[in-house]
Amino acid sequence: MAYIDGYRLASSRVLDLAQPMRTGMPQSANHPPFRVILERRHGDYVRGDGGSAADEVIVTSGHIGTHVDALGHVSHNGVAHGGVAASAIQGYRGLSSLGIENFTPYLGRAVVLDVARLHGVDVLPAGYEITADDLSRAEALAGSDVRSGEAVLIGTGWSRLWDQYDVFTGLRAGVPGPGPDAAYWLASRRVRVVGGESLAFERIGPGLGETTYPVHRILLVEAGINIVETMRLHELLDSGCGECLLILAPLPIVGATGAPVRPLAVIPG
Amino acid sequence: MAYIDGYRLASSRVLDLAQPMRTGMPQSANHPPFRVILERRHGDYVRGDGGSAADEVIVTSGHIGTHVDALGHVSHNGVAHGGVAASAIQGYRGLSSLGIENFTPYLGRAVVLDVARLHGVDVLPAGYEITADDLSRAEALAGSDVRSGEAVLIGTGWSRLWDQYDVFTGLRAGVPGPGPDAAYWLASRRVRVVGGESLAFERIGPGLGETTYPVHRILLVEAGINIVETMRLHELLDSGCGECLLILAPLPIVGATGAPVRPLAVIPG
Amino acid sequence: MAYIDGYRLASSRVLDLAQPMRTGMPQSANHPPFRVILERRHGDYVRGDGGSAADEVIVTSGHIGTHVDALGHVSHNGVAHGGVAASAIQGYRGLSSLGIENFTPYLGRAVVLDVARLHGVDVLPAGYEITADDLSRAEALAGSDVRSGEAVLIGTGWSRLWDQYDVFTGLRAGVPGPGPDAAYWLASRRVRVVGGESLAFERIGPGLGETTYPVHRILLVEAGINIVETMRLHELLDSGCGECLLILAPLPIVGATGAPVRPLAVIPG
Amino acid sequence: MAYIDGYRLASSRVLDLAQPMRTGMPQSANHPPFRVILERRHGDYVRGDGGSAADEVIVTSGHIGTHVDALGHVSHNGVAHGGVAASAIQGYRGLSSLGIENFTPYLGRAVVLDVARLHGVDVLPAGYEITADDLSRAEALAGSDVRSGEAVLIGTGWSRLWDQYDVFTGLRAGVPGPGPDAAYWLASRRVRVVGGESLAFERIGPGLGETTYPVHRILLVEAGINIVETMRLHELLDSGCGECLLILAPLPIVGATGAPVRPLAVIPG
Repeated sequence: MAYIDGYRLASSRVLDLAQPMRTGMPQSANHPPFRVILERRHGDYVRGDGGSAADEVIVTSGHIGTHVDALGHVSHNGVAHGGVAASAIQGYRGLSSLGIENFTPYLGRAVVLDVARLHGVDVLPAGYEITADDLSRAEALAGSDVRSGEAVLIGTGWSRLWDQYDVFTGLRAGVPGPGPDAAYWLASRRVRVVGGESLAFERIGPGLGETTYPVHRILLVEAGINIVETMRLHELLDSGCGECLLILAPLPIVGATGAPVRPLAVIPG
Repeated sequence: MAYIDGYRLASSRVLDLAQPMRTGMPQSANHPPFRVILERRHGDYVRGDGGSAADEVIVTSGHIGTHVDALGHVSHNGVAHGGVAASAIQGYRGLSSLGIENFTPYLGRAVVLDVARLHGVDVLPAGYEITADDLSRAEALAGSDVRSGEAVLIGTGWSRLWDQYDVFTGLRAGVPGPGPDAAYWLASRRVRVVGGESLAFERIGPGLGETTYPVHRILLVEAGINIVETMRLHELLDSGCGECLLILAPLPIVGATGAPVRPLAVIPG
Repeated sequence: MAYIDGYRLASSRVLDLAQPMRTGMPQSANHPPFRVILERRHGDYVRGDGGSAADEVIVTSGHIGTHVDALGHVSHNGVAHGGVAASAIQGYRGLSSLGIENFTPYLGRAVVLDVARLHGVDVLPAGYEITADDLSRAEALAGSDVRSGEAVLIGTGWSRLWDQYDVFTGLRAGVPGPGPDAAYWLASRRVRVVGGESLAFERIGPGLGETTYPVHRILLVEAGINIVETMRLHELLDSGCGECLLILAPLPIVGATGAPVRPLAVIPG
Repeated sequence: MAYIDGYRLASSRVLDLAQPMRTGMPQSANHPPFRVILERRHGDYVRGDGGSAADEVIVTSGHIGTHVDALGHVSHNGVAHGGVAASAIQGYRGLSSLGIENFTPYLGRAVVLDVARLHGVDVLPAGYEITADDLSRAEALAGSDVRSGEAVLIGTGWSRLWDQYDVFTGLRAGVPGPGPDAAYWLASRRVRVVGGESLAFERIGPGLGETTYPVHRILLVEAGINIVETMRLHELLDSGCGECLLILAPLPIVGATGAPVRPLAVIPG
């Protein structure tokens, strides 16, 4: 029993980094609308012993709610990560390689780069582009080194706006996020996975919609770094912790280009 | 950084306790067949910068693959856990109380009660009923006390049969699982959550199908103990560990009667 | 062969009264978004003889596109058509009575009441309420009597706006449609089925959304008259025909509250 | 009014040629299981005026229940009807050409080639291969010429077995249907559309499953003749009519490789 007690569970705090999933939640228009439908209800069918059950049908996507992008989600000029022809790895069973089942669950350190706090705000302005310089200064602020093979969570405060559909999706005013040089900064640190709070881990300009995704290209295709999107980071940001123990285990959907996940952060209690 | 290093990540081993999810995997006939469909493929739409993406539609249920049953999943004589009328908490938005979003992610000790090992087999026979006595003896074998508020995982070895659809579903020969007195044993220990390897955390007799679910009634309705089903425990059983650090964070689907989960076990490396 | 030739097919014209169904078409927000997803594509799987097939998954509703409402679609104060308690006829298999499978395909006369033409316009104004007087005058204009057991199609010209999503759904400006006294007029004629061009066979006021559905109550619950919605009538209106042979055979989805249909009108060629 | 009365509706009989659609009905394993789920039920939401509605979600395919195959459903060696490269006409919006929306609703003569009656049986044996000679003799029996541009319905009696899932799907014993030379016979007559009673308009041998589809290739790819499958013809066969007026208007699902349909036959009353 000493083994488990050594994990200092009693003196730790566990934070939920996933947004609640429900019909009508903010999501990208590219994906099928998330929908939960109660199919059988209590009383519909009652067994001889008086027992009855309710259950639902769920229509979702690998890119709805808090989720992890598989490396094979994006291609560039027909080529996916590792130089594979994208057309060669896709079929009616999904991706034959680079699918989300290849993402080994992550249990390890995550450095929290709180760019909002760096700029003295709760939420970065819509359309703000996070730069490499922002990340360097946020790293100093965190007091924790970004290391190869580990995770980075970038704070924009955007998850605070989850309940404001139009603001969160940012179709009009845009969404803050990393620009290409921030992506190269992350790639140069050889991290394993990065996470953010908005629908897409990109800076979206006002009124532009999601026209290009340079950060997806740099991270997924070029650097082989998985991306976590739509994370609920605000509680972690409020804690002021520069790092946390991150637990990130997406559903093992074979061949999927992404999968929902309920990440947890463990911090001192 | 000392905080995270204190978690002894370097000397721990992380086990994946979820079965892989794919179209055609074993599941209960009560639920909609799991299906993943690649909707957009690479090349379907190519942006001006050469970028393209693939993504899918997923049709699933809260009770497919490795998943956690919400307390409101089952009722008895019209009454759900806590004496609530089941008809009063269900609607087109799902459950208004007792839904899976009320399950706080669990990060804590799990005692492994390996009943298969107790009987000197890799896999318990189809239709075998686990008794309270089995659990008491398996607890002694584990060398770890089952405590109030914690988790219990029951080993039958059944997860080794995942790739044998007909055997795993057990429609003909049955499935091993706890009987009512084993359920009362678990309830008396006031655990928070219990997990097993088969489709339903029940003993299914040969040829009987899933006629009654006494264990669901005892645990969910009477005792308020959540159930994890279809866990991939065999690797944990093979480790011989009597306990592990269990991480159990089901998708936070609001109003759902259950939700998919990818549980992890952490054991000494 | 004389039998078929007697149908004067050579001298008749067949009009398509259904709107084309595609992802993103106008629909009520109450229903799951219509979606067609190509699952298998040519080349995904090629048989030994060189053959390959493509097919799709379709997520729809009984109330999307051109469709027929079953009598059991709507209830009033808990009571459905014929005085049945609505709660007694619904379950996880759908409606046990009053479902769309009880609608015998209709092949017979339909009188065309062109209220738009009556008012000298191509399309009635958004929010216009059709009155009983409108219907009486449109009947005179048609030169064809509305008879018991037959069909009535009401022309508003609204189907001309199908390609203008925001206008067609009318969330801001409203939608023209029958008011309660027009519904009573139809009920008094004891017709079997009535059809219109907008999403709901109701007058929707500007900015009101779909707050109440008096016409559904009068026709479905009280009078037992089925309703066809979202019909593509403009070509028929343009023909100037006061009546047509209507063929109306909705999909026989057992227990459904409505079903898609592709109605045809046959008029002199 | 004389126009409609000229259609001799009073002295005609309308037969329903569609099988009822419900969860669990026989279907090909290639397609997503048909499922109807009541989403909102009466009483879930009651408006201020006492009104309430029930509606459903439907998961289906273009090839489930009685349906019409689009010409683009099948390809051979990568080529679809008209010599088009199959890869060039498919995308995430479905087929850009040869989709079911290109099938103009058919209202015209259908000759009934009752091969079962020809052989003096109600239902042809499982695995029976219909030959060109069968069709020629059945045409003589029908007393009605198969003409260019018209429809042919082939009677096997198989629709009588709809309620026997295992027999109807024929996975073990096979299914009767046309062989290649019957298909060439149909192609040589330049008909517009052909229909049959089983899941696939093919002869399926015992235990072979659906290994090859030569008839689909000949009719769809080579001859450009649409196929209607899973028709409920037995009532028409029992009528003894050698021809009927066939009304065949599949749902106009844009880009789909097939679509459900509720065909009607009109015969002398």
